[in-house]
Amino acid sequence: MMAESQVGKEETRAKLPPHQKHKQALLSELSREELEARVKQVEAHNTQLRNLLSKSQTGATPDSLSTHGKSPKQRDFDFSKYSCRHVALKLCYLGWDYQGFTVQEDSHNTIEAQLFAALLKTRLIQSRETSNYHRCGRTDKGVSAFDQVISITLRSKVRKGIGVEGVTQEKDSSTTDRLKEYEKEEEEEEINYVQLLNRVLPQEIRILAWCPVPSEFSARFDCCQRTYKYFFPQGSLDLQAMNQAGQHLVGEHDFRNLCKMDVANGVVNFKRRIMAVRVARMDQKDGEDTGGGSEDVNESPSDGDGYGMCVATIEGQAFLWHQVRAVMAVLFLVGQGKEQPDVVAELLDVKTHPRKPQYCLASDLPLNLWAVHFDGVAWRWDEDELRRLLGQLQEVWTQQAVRNTMTRSMLKDLEGRYERLIRVREKRKGKEDEEKQPGNNEPEMKKMKRDEENNEEVKMRMEEEDEGWRVKEQPAVLMSGNKCKVYRPLLTRPTCESLEKRVEHYIKKQRLDPELLKKLD
Amino acid sequence: MMAESQVGKEETRAKLPPHQKHKQALLSELSREELEARVKQVEAHNTQLRNLLSKSQTGATPDSLSTHGKSPKQRDFDFSKYSCRHVALKLCYLGWDYQGFTVQEDSHNTIEAQLFAALLKTRLIQSRETSNYHRCGRTDKGVSAFDQVISITLRSKVRKGIGVEGVTQEKDSSTTDRLKEYEKEEEEEEINYVQLLNRVLPQEIRILAWCPVPSEFSARFDCCQRTYKYFFPQGSLDLQAMNQAGQHLVGEHDFRNLCKMDVANGVVNFKRRIMAVRVARMDQKDGEDTGGGSEDVNESPSDGDGYGMCVATIEGQAFLWHQVRAVMAVLFLVGQGKEQPDVVAELLDVKTHPRKPQYCLASDLPLNLWAVHFDGVAWRWDEDELRRLLGQLQEVWTQQAVRNTMTRSMLKDLEGRYERLIRVREKRKGKEDEEKQPGNNEPEMKKMKRDEENNEEVKMRMEEEDEGWRVKEQPAVLMSGNKCKVYRPLLTRPTCESLEKRVEHYIKKQRLDPELLKKLD
Repeated sequence: MMAESQVGKEETRAKLPPHQKHKQALLSELSREELEARVKQVEAHNTQLRNLLSKSQTGATPDSLSTHGKSPKQRDFDFSKYSCRHVALKLCYLGWDYQGFTVQEDSHNTIEAQLFAALLKTRLIQSRETSNYHRCGRTDKGVSAFDQVISITLRSKVRKGIGVEGVTQEKDSSTTDRLKEYEKEEEEEEINYVQLLNRVLPQEIRILAWCPVPSEFSARFDCCQRTYKYFFPQGSLDLQAMNQAGQHLVGEHDFRNLCKMDVANGVVNFKRRIMAVRVARMDQKDGEDTGGGSEDVNESPSDGDGYGMCVATIEGQAFLWHQVRAVMAVLFLVGQGKEQPDVVAELLDVKTHPRKPQYCLASDLPLNLWAVHFDGVAWRWDEDELRRLLGQLQEVWTQQAVRNTMTRSMLKDLEGRYERLIRVREKRKGKEDEEKQPGNNEPEMKKMKRDEENNEEVKMRMEEEDEGWRVKEQPAVLMSGNKCKVYRPLLTRPTCESLEKRVEHYIKKQRLDPELLKKLD
Repeated sequence: MMAESQVGKEETRAKLPPHQKHKQALLSELSREELEARVKQVEAHNTQLRNLLSKSQTGATPDSLSTHGKSPKQRDFDFSKYSCRHVALKLCYLGWDYQGFTVQEDSHNTIEAQLFAALLKTRLIQSRETSNYHRCGRTDKGVSAFDQVISITLRSKVRKGIGVEGVTQEKDSSTTDRLKEYEKEEEEEEINYVQLLNRVLPQEIRILAWCPVPSEFSARFDCCQRTYKYFFPQGSLDLQAMNQAGQHLVGEHDFRNLCKMDVANGVVNFKRRIMAVRVARMDQKDGEDTGGGSEDVNESPSDGDGYGMCVATIEGQAFLWHQVRAVMAVLFLVGQGKEQPDVVAELLDVKTHPRKPQYCLASDLPLNLWAVHFDGVAWRWDEDELRRLLGQLQEVWTQQAVRNTMTRSMLKDLEGRYERLIRVREKRKGKEDEEKQPGNNEPEMKKMKRDEENNEEVKMRMEEEDEGWRVKEQPAVLMSGNKCKVYRPLLTRPTCESLEKRVEHYIKKQRLDPELLKKLD
């Protein structure tokens, strides 16, 4: 079957006798994205089979799948009646079930693909190629965004205004002046881009706001700051240590050891600037600040409740590929006490450590491009559309929350039971041990022990000491490769290839300019 | 396609023109478990198609899907070497992506199907038919359970003990006596059913505990009490009213207006006993009691935070089909102020209201068979297995919680923005109104107004009055059929067929005994 060659684990299982009913076990081992890929493959295969079947039966030619944007209606639309306008669109998306933001060759399951499908369907653009399209962030597979921005030229109802093409812009007036001048005029007249697009986009992708911009504006190059958030449960992580480790990241550093080097695409400079890092519980005051370096906001590491949600906030100018996930992987190691906070400083010392130790990235699920900043862009929000969005998002939230609350309730009950089982066992063991010792069977001794056990203070102390029984594996699923029994400190691990070697490799393959080698430090 | 008929949303999308490339949207809207179900469906369809194709091409007999329990290895296993033992198994499952507990003809995606697949694979039974199988509850599609119990005869390692077949049970000793007698002997020796099954079951179905029982024990008939929980977000629901309405349910009543009548299957008696009902916030003291009738535990209805999770707990002897979902539908109407709490008493008055008003059931997602009670069953929990289960369930919890926290954070930010938009609009409107009135432009008047606005007390009062802007649609997605602009009170709605008519109908169809008509009140 086509599907089996795609997934590594499948090849192992393919060796099992065909009668083995392991299908359900197989599926639960696959990731979300692998599952979706499998559905598509099998459906495609089914289409082929149906075609063959109908051929073999009637000899008729099967329907082919239509490609984006070539529906008959599209060809009839007269774009020449409209002007064009360069705008910035602010959007958010829950990306955990997508193959990333950018269009892929082998998958339509990307945010961009959905976006362009919507832009074409609503006839706001004629084609991607002619739309002067730029994107601010390039979020990967599974990653979400609360603030992604794109700049693009759209069909427009108005004849004059910021960004309207074919109109001579007053070169000596500032963007702000021009904005004010046209504001009243535009507010009533322009196409409601936000509403129009949201009607056809899938629920998990929403346009939040728009703003007309000069045609030279680029969402990619004009962005001066980006903030990421990473949401995770505390478990028994030491947030203070994580926060401390995070402070080493602030400033300008060479992050080659804290990212995935994208040399193939010409990235050879790994110096980036981080403005702020913060790790905190969300239920505490300031838990959701996007900045600040205060280290006293965290309480003691094992805050009792491993279920408490935390957020790591990282503000930077621009980010490298998988930089935040690599940082989180290391912060998690620090939080587990497997590494000291200083290890971050070590990893940033590329003279001492020119080659990256091997470690796995943290999960993509909790990562969110939370905020991006552009100077001079005054976003326009539509109150009605925002109201509608709140309702829709609450619906999504509820469906998640109901499941989550149910699971949590089950856990609470089971944890109570687990604790009781342990205590029963310990009590029984305690009694057995006691009975072996002379003198402990005396009535007075027994009475003293009972009194001790009944003493509230003693009880509480025993409970605290006993906390070791509590299962706090909540964050584990976000960290990969932690299955080894013996932990290997980062700086002692085998390393990846150096930057220089990679550059040489791609120069040989004639994909990079040989001059680049000289540019490296 | 098979898949399309299974998912409600699919039917809507099937109406879209075929050129629409929405497949990826479909998949990404599905939850993990729905995806797995889809994979199984398309693969099953795939097998069918291949069979048809090979039939049409070669005329050869295709491989048929092997039916449960007939794999070659199974035939080689020598069951005669083992004894049999009647046991009760306690299990839990997250059922939102299954087609219910009981086996369906047209779907393998049921809890029971998974259970039997596991029982056969581990060779704990030879076949369902010979396993003396009974189940306690019959949860429907989408419904979960924290405490489902089945009784079944399994392969056993021991030669004597409770429930071991072929051994003469001491007829005059009580179950408890016999249990004690065999306890030590059994604890070391018996097959670790819990562990063995959990290794092959899908993650969302877990065996929690087991207990050997006499062969006459039936999970279905020996259950004396069942408790359901229903988890939902508060929104702007009036919990006090809901709780009050719920109290009318306590006692023995005819629940024909608060269930889906299953006359076709011979259910003609709708009298059931409810022992307790309770609706409360979960974050409050006693929020998670399974009983009690105290009505003072709820705070004021609009507790500020529409996101607060609540739970309705209903304890009864036995339940009718969809009874809890029907009850929740009515409680939701009461909670929204669309009905008075008394409406429940009205619906229970079947003399005055012999025919059920038309209303939709509440969502299945939040429903959970939380606890079932059997006398004399001393469940055996395995500490290691429970530890393992906690870790697995925490993993599930985390993946839900990360998404939920992210969504909540987005909502928080957007709600703040929405509030600001409204205030800006209102302020602007306020100023415009003011400027129209004479005398308001005097500096003194203006100063007074500014002082007023700056006064903290005034600010707070304004904020409270303004709370109307807050979007509190969280519970909406759990209630169907609420889209009409004009609400129709339950007791004025068109009604469904009466019980008598339904019985007559099935008697005519010769599916029911004509004597039944006489038995009706």
